[in-house]
Amino acid sequence: KEEEELRQRFMAPPVSGLRELRRRRRELRSRMELLIMETQGEVCRALAALDPGAVFAVDTWERKEGGGGISCVLQDGEIFEKAGVNVSVVFGLLSEEAARQMRSRGKSLKAKDGKLPFCAMGVSSVIHPKNPHVPTMHFNYRYFEIEEADGTKQWWFGGGTDLTPTYLNEEDAIHFHKTLKEACDKHDLKLYPKYKKWCDDYFYIEHRGERRGIGGIFFDDVDSPSKEEVFQFVKSCAKAVVPCYIPIVKRHCHDSFTPEEKLWQQLRRGRYVEFNLVYDRGTKFGLLTPGSRIESILMSLPLTARWEYMHTPPESSKEAEILEVLRNPKDWVH
Amino acid sequence: KEEEELRQRFMAPPVSGLRELRRRRRELRSRMELLIMETQGEVCRALAALDPGAVFAVDTWERKEGGGGISCVLQDGEIFEKAGVNVSVVFGLLSEEAARQMRSRGKSLKAKDGKLPFCAMGVSSVIHPKNPHVPTMHFNYRYFEIEEADGTKQWWFGGGTDLTPTYLNEEDAIHFHKTLKEACDKHDLKLYPKYKKWCDDYFYIEHRGERRGIGGIFFDDVDSPSKEEVFQFVKSCAKAVVPCYIPIVKRHCHDSFTPEEKLWQQLRRGRYVEFNLVYDRGTKFGLLTPGSRIESILMSLPLTARWEYMHTPPESSKEAEILEVLRNPKDWVH
Repeated sequence: KEEEELRQRFMAPPVSGLRELRRRRRELRSRMELLIMETQGEVCRALAALDPGAVFAVDTWERKEGGGGISCVLQDGEIFEKAGVNVSVVFGLLSEEAARQMRSRGKSLKAKDGKLPFCAMGVSSVIHPKNPHVPTMHFNYRYFEIEEADGTKQWWFGGGTDLTPTYLNEEDAIHFHKTLKEACDKHDLKLYPKYKKWCDDYFYIEHRGERRGIGGIFFDDVDSPSKEEVFQFVKSCAKAVVPCYIPIVKRHCHDSFTPEEKLWQQLRRGRYVEFNLVYDRGTKFGLLTPGSRIESILMSLPLTARWEYMHTPPESSKEAEILEVLRNPKDWVH
Repeated sequence: KEEEELRQRFMAPPVSGLRELRRRRRELRSRMELLIMETQGEVCRALAALDPGAVFAVDTWERKEGGGGISCVLQDGEIFEKAGVNVSVVFGLLSEEAARQMRSRGKSLKAKDGKLPFCAMGVSSVIHPKNPHVPTMHFNYRYFEIEEADGTKQWWFGGGTDLTPTYLNEEDAIHFHKTLKEACDKHDLKLYPKYKKWCDDYFYIEHRGERRGIGGIFFDDVDSPSKEEVFQFVKSCAKAVVPCYIPIVKRHCHDSFTPEEKLWQQLRRGRYVEFNLVYDRGTKFGLLTPGSRIESILMSLPLTARWEYMHTPPESSKEAEILEVLRNPKDWVH
């Protein structure tokens, strides 16, 4: 009966199988896999409810080296241009070099015969709406385990949720950051300020001197205070995705817009592509990993984008206003 | 009088100044700078002659660390969506690390006080036409000099010309490759086969298992048999750009096309962006070099591009035909 319920909440059967997840239900790996499956279901249902004309294509894929994933993609809907919510649960053996690259801090790992058993799982999503007054949103929550030669397991979590508006709307920015801050504050008051700054630093397009968006939270390589406490924090963040974003979509998805506003959105989409292909660690890691599923990784790219030579918005325009915030990030909540 | 003539053939005064170039007219640096200026002028005039509604914007820029460039960009013309022809002549001091990265073979260089005086110059261009039956074309010819601690100068040339069609037209492919082969064959019969293969290998989008286009020629780090001979070869290649490409534009720029063909072009433009941002050494080097001019580097990106999740053209379609050639490059001339 409980199984039946889960089945209805998930977009597809989990990679590890429901029975296996039940058998190992006390293990963090299983609880995390259930959380990412549940998050995928929640977000997809919330998006589909807003976009009557849209249906999620659900693709289940296997990775021949171990594991697999579930990609849910909505394309060319009424409200959403492209929305992807992807779950992946992969495992196998890593080289010491690949293992080092997985951690942003590059801790050393001792391998047995040069190979390290690992498990990596996560949910990641990018939502590109059609209306330029509805921002793009991205989130990703992930968990890694690597087993060293002596049997000790290294583990860590990473993740974040961030917003990329075409035009600045202060009310939206405050709502988004406030919802994230509340999720963080339940666990430790130090988390939001720290991860807000990390987000501003991470989503930096160096060659443009701009951030990709107005931020949110971002963290990587988190392995303290304890596995259980970090998991509970990640769970709060994942549960905050829908309340962060859906009210903003509802508020603006029927706003009128001009062709010029659509053009500016397309130029901002170009910057999104630049960040993802040039800087994003997850994308780069995916492109370089043998056996990774390219279509699921590049799902994050917008349906359409534009690059104009030397485009500069006029001073004190709405376009210049958002650029100013992308160049000098603001604190939205205190 | 000769000066007056040059002035008319160039898009702007050369970075080093006409008088200085005349004074050092025997030096290869000067001859190369004149060649790249001349190539820029030739190509811009040939493109402008085909696109009556279009005017090249000519931007002259300086690099505060030394040197500068001239960017000529035509945007949203009748025939060309975006066409950029860029000259840059930069000099200054390189760190040993940066110098090593400039050479594809990574030769070691001995620096005086850790710094190496260098000079880098080149002409580079990407032409994106509107009509999906007119291919995108790219070329780049460049020259580097680095002075080591003992005063010896290392020098090398690099370059290439390659074609990226949306649909395969065998006649065009043969014309393009044949014109390049003739330019190469004047110097050494071994060059075309070698540089044709190098081109197929270089423009490989590994995560897609496809090449960016149907190739052409590509070479880097060429410093033999002699400076004069390599320069003469590069000159032949630069002179071949207009005869390679312009007849193809003329033949197809008024072809009719369907909305579906335009869509396929936009998807191919997306792959072009993927190659340039993820793999292209020149772009990466530019993005990482302090003081480089971002707008000139990213001029290569198309005006518009598109990414669809899991797009697969039907078997035996015209779209599948070009994909097949991008996956398995062909020999177009023997």
